[in-house]
Amino acid sequence: MTQQFRGVIPPAVTPLTATHELDLPSFESSINRMIDAGVNGIFTLGSSGEVAFSTDDRRREIINAAMEIVDDRVPVLVGCIDTETNRVIEHAYVARELGASAIVATAPFYALGGEAEVERHFRLIHEAVPDLPLFAYDIPICVHTKLQRDMLIRLGLDGVLTGVKDSSNDDVSFRFLVDDNNEAGHPLTLLTGQEVVVDGAYMAGADGSVPGLANVEATAYVHMWNAYQEGDWRSVRDEQDKMAALMRITSVVQGVQGFGAGVGAFKTALALLGVFDTNQMPEPIAPLKGENVERIAAVLKDCGLPLERTSLEVSESTVVKD
Amino acid sequence: MTQQFRGVIPPAVTPLTATHELDLPSFESSINRMIDAGVNGIFTLGSSGEVAFSTDDRRREIINAAMEIVDDRVPVLVGCIDTETNRVIEHAYVARELGASAIVATAPFYALGGEAEVERHFRLIHEAVPDLPLFAYDIPICVHTKLQRDMLIRLGLDGVLTGVKDSSNDDVSFRFLVDDNNEAGHPLTLLTGQEVVVDGAYMAGADGSVPGLANVEATAYVHMWNAYQEGDWRSVRDEQDKMAALMRITSVVQGVQGFGAGVGAFKTALALLGVFDTNQMPEPIAPLKGENVERIAAVLKDCGLPLERTSLEVSESTVVKD
Amino acid sequence: MTQQFRGVIPPAVTPLTATHELDLPSFESSINRMIDAGVNGIFTLGSSGEVAFSTDDRRREIINAAMEIVDDRVPVLVGCIDTETNRVIEHAYVARELGASAIVATAPFYALGGEAEVERHFRLIHEAVPDLPLFAYDIPICVHTKLQRDMLIRLGLDGVLTGVKDSSNDDVSFRFLVDDNNEAGHPLTLLTGQEVVVDGAYMAGADGSVPGLANVEATAYVHMWNAYQEGDWRSVRDEQDKMAALMRITSVVQGVQGFGAGVGAFKTALALLGVFDTNQMPEPIAPLKGENVERIAAVLKDCGLPLERTSLEVSESTVVKD
Amino acid sequence: MTQQFRGVIPPAVTPLTATHELDLPSFESSINRMIDAGVNGIFTLGSSGEVAFSTDDRRREIINAAMEIVDDRVPVLVGCIDTETNRVIEHAYVARELGASAIVATAPFYALGGEAEVERHFRLIHEAVPDLPLFAYDIPICVHTKLQRDMLIRLGLDGVLTGVKDSSNDDVSFRFLVDDNNEAGHPLTLLTGQEVVVDGAYMAGADGSVPGLANVEATAYVHMWNAYQEGDWRSVRDEQDKMAALMRITSVVQGVQGFGAGVGAFKTALALLGVFDTNQMPEPIAPLKGENVERIAAVLKDCGLPLERTSLEVSESTVVKD
Repeated sequence: MTQQFRGVIPPAVTPLTATHELDLPSFESSINRMIDAGVNGIFTLGSSGEVAFSTDDRRREIINAAMEIVDDRVPVLVGCIDTETNRVIEHAYVARELGASAIVATAPFYALGGEAEVERHFRLIHEAVPDLPLFAYDIPICVHTKLQRDMLIRLGLDGVLTGVKDSSNDDVSFRFLVDDNNEAGHPLTLLTGQEVVVDGAYMAGADGSVPGLANVEATAYVHMWNAYQEGDWRSVRDEQDKMAALMRITSVVQGVQGFGAGVGAFKTALALLGVFDTNQMPEPIAPLKGENVERIAAVLKDCGLPLERTSLEVSESTVVKD
Repeated sequence: MTQQFRGVIPPAVTPLTATHELDLPSFESSINRMIDAGVNGIFTLGSSGEVAFSTDDRRREIINAAMEIVDDRVPVLVGCIDTETNRVIEHAYVARELGASAIVATAPFYALGGEAEVERHFRLIHEAVPDLPLFAYDIPICVHTKLQRDMLIRLGLDGVLTGVKDSSNDDVSFRFLVDDNNEAGHPLTLLTGQEVVVDGAYMAGADGSVPGLANVEATAYVHMWNAYQEGDWRSVRDEQDKMAALMRITSVVQGVQGFGAGVGAFKTALALLGVFDTNQMPEPIAPLKGENVERIAAVLKDCGLPLERTSLEVSESTVVKD
Repeated sequence: MTQQFRGVIPPAVTPLTATHELDLPSFESSINRMIDAGVNGIFTLGSSGEVAFSTDDRRREIINAAMEIVDDRVPVLVGCIDTETNRVIEHAYVARELGASAIVATAPFYALGGEAEVERHFRLIHEAVPDLPLFAYDIPICVHTKLQRDMLIRLGLDGVLTGVKDSSNDDVSFRFLVDDNNEAGHPLTLLTGQEVVVDGAYMAGADGSVPGLANVEATAYVHMWNAYQEGDWRSVRDEQDKMAALMRITSVVQGVQGFGAGVGAFKTALALLGVFDTNQMPEPIAPLKGENVERIAAVLKDCGLPLERTSLEVSESTVVKD
Repeated sequence: MTQQFRGVIPPAVTPLTATHELDLPSFESSINRMIDAGVNGIFTLGSSGEVAFSTDDRRREIINAAMEIVDDRVPVLVGCIDTETNRVIEHAYVARELGASAIVATAPFYALGGEAEVERHFRLIHEAVPDLPLFAYDIPICVHTKLQRDMLIRLGLDGVLTGVKDSSNDDVSFRFLVDDNNEAGHPLTLLTGQEVVVDGAYMAGADGSVPGLANVEATAYVHMWNAYQEGDWRSVRDEQDKMAALMRITSVVQGVQGFGAGVGAFKTALALLGVFDTNQMPEPIAPLKGENVERIAAVLKDCGLPLERTSLEVSESTVVKD
């Protein structure tokens, strides 16, 4: 079962039109481009898939689109991200209804709790959709809880969790999780959510990666995965070097923090490459513009990616003057 | 306009039946008890009103119940708490449809952002429901962003914000906010979300308080407010002393953290006082039991509150064995 | 015994010459000015006394100067601030040798530990200088540990601690500490380290305050204390209002964070008032200059304080070009 | 010049006698054992060398001992760890006087500051001892400041810094630092302070490692380094696997946090292996005992290390009853 979630499973970035509608043609281009590059799955409605910004209707629209575009070529993992258990379970029901291959849920957030509550949260989600593989999404920078290793292993052994998407930026902890998982008979599929240290995660023994940057360039991540499977560490390293250079599209951005810089750079690159029609961002985030776009274009060029455009029209911000 | 949101505006705790349904009779008893004590408003779907745990249907059910019970005797503020702008706006539309007197929204959370995004977030919410007074809810412990004073004042002067509910536990910052607000002509109604340092907030010049503990005992907070209006600081202090002693119901709890201890203690006290039928908590939180209930009963007794029961039946946890 | 440490005990700001020597005449002026205003003690080598920036020789020089200037008019508390127990004890021996009335120590910092280690730390310090009253300095923003209330009370009852200087900016916790201390028979003298919410701390029942701003203007804090002793809360509030307005000298500073802005503003104000000769700061902090000085001068003027100068010579930075 | 600081440079753990004296024979055994294993340098008075716990006299004693034992066989780096610039510079003078090959300093801590102050701090230290290679020690868990990449590169290019010891547990940032450093012409020697993800740091291009665990077993780290130099990634990975298994000595410890668990486990292992005479810890930390010792012994045994003892005498704690 868990074999099917190994390898490169990019979190699909969600394209918007200038007026903040879901841009279906761009979504199709982007997902097809990744599948053509050989990725092993698509993770939709992840953090970089703007799940937190999307209304329930929009989420449904995104899942539907992803399912239709992917068309069973690879598994589709669906993020069911919300504050507490009952809200997450509602998303899980929708994901199941729409045909998700697996779902991905974080620890509860907003309200403060303890470890017992986190564990019960995952058990309740699994109980609600027992037929649907469940991944725990370890992303303390968003939910402010680090998932404990012993709990993860226990939930794996109990059949509650199928795997973990680790975006905790704690390579030491991930290393120990891999070892614990191996000792326990490998109940969990362990995916790293990194872009520039996937090589280290593979050295540690990861079962795959969920790199946002693969939206911009998936081939290198596929090569890296294949090289890892063959024990060809020199190639792993070479591909990672290329991707670290490309990831500079996010760090050249100035004056913007967090999601607006990170996913903003991905969308801007995708628009410059002609995959996306715009680099529009979900409210209240503004799309990147001006020198930030130029800086991203320069990185893409340095990395040898084929620019379709060198500048972007500024999406009209139709609502609020500020 | 803002005058109507001054004084004591408790965040209504939400009673559940043993099977996790909304317990309407208990909700009615509790809200009536607070209004009879003289509170100046009711804040429903706040953090302690378990907004983060409630599905959209449950939220609608709670608002409807609150509106019907309150029946225009005092204003009803409704928490529109969700991760990002578009999701919050959907809750705002529901609150408006159901007749809310005002809405309350936090900074965006889950995704990382900057100050510009926070400001635009509030402006967009106001633009969506311009007729509905909007309070900013400053609660960094839940959303991990502290609202900046200059932004709050600017949004007040621009008519975007009607007021601020400050649950930041930063009395220094609150003191400066009050002064800034006074200098700016008092555009904002400033409410403190504290229970045991309301006296200090009144010394600083707060326009009211939103004390969760008022669910358990509202009279003292009403007395405190009246004494403050009359400059009778000795009485302010005496009432605060009583409420600090009563707030020990939350700190005597052992082995449980955060919401489970805080709101758990409120619900347990309300059940022991016969106002609530159970002390059931929303999933994945377990209700308090055993010695924790005894400790809370002892505090209530020490504080002279009339216990209806001295123990509680343990609500059956019907789902997950753990 | 603990009676002698009640009231207003300012943390003495340390004046430097342009070449970073201890400026003895300015130190004398400043301390005398505070004692003349009626303060109840002087706390030297606190955080705002630049203890962390001072070498051991400089610390000895500061203690010696303070002892000589104060000349037994009020008690002198000496900060013994260092990373771990043995280093703190060395400072305690020096403080005892030089005649300190009491010493003040934080939780251990730099290395990570737990609660047992924090408690043992204070016990060992007391055991090394059992004759010297010991205050625990609760300053998590500097040492990243919050002192637990039950430990503090236990150490008070065991005669290890004489009191607590609370700079934790957690008024809720301070409120509960006061109550716990009263229940335990008041073993601890509880001092708040705040400037703008001293009124709230007095409402809570504090035994005194340690306001850095009293270096700039001590009279109001003395008045506030006396009014508190007499139950004259209106005057407490009036004096606090004045001091909140004056504290704006720290928040008008732009482009500088932390110690450089806070103590930088105190030193700048003292230089503008003619109490200090320069506003020189300890390395690696630069003294405030230009518009920041002008902004501070404007606040002082608004608050009715008598400026001796309206600008300051920029202290030559003799070492590093940057 | 910087070539001499490449490779494996363990932070020497400091052995104590039961009465808290420096245990010279154990120190000699341990350092010789590491040099015999082929390490490329010794870092004394690092965090795990208990620098924060050691008085100035003890620090001098440790440096003297290390210099004498090492006897020019490899370079000796000396930690000059203190709160702010002037205190660090005093330690730097001592290190220079006693013959250190290089010094290692963190960002300032305790007082709050900004980036300009951090940069000036390193410049002033270098100006004080311009002849002594200076490493920046990036350890935010202890000093609560993350060193910025652009500043590090600038200080490298200006000849202020010779290198960086990265203990920030941020592999993404380290990866980018390596790339920035290469682009700048490799002005900095970049050492990782990790134990279980050294393989990833080598993949990223680190110039060496500073693993505390090498006190317990240095050979594997030397092998890993050599394999890395030869591009033999399979061996890098195998050696790292062994060391990850051995590092479990720190995670099997129960009921103790931080330094007491981490360095406590190293000392306990060294005592069980017969390298150290005791596992005594610096005050206020208690040495590990009972089941924690047994658990560590079990890990050592599983990893095939030759135990000299299977239990340890409990060091008498001579001072405080608690």
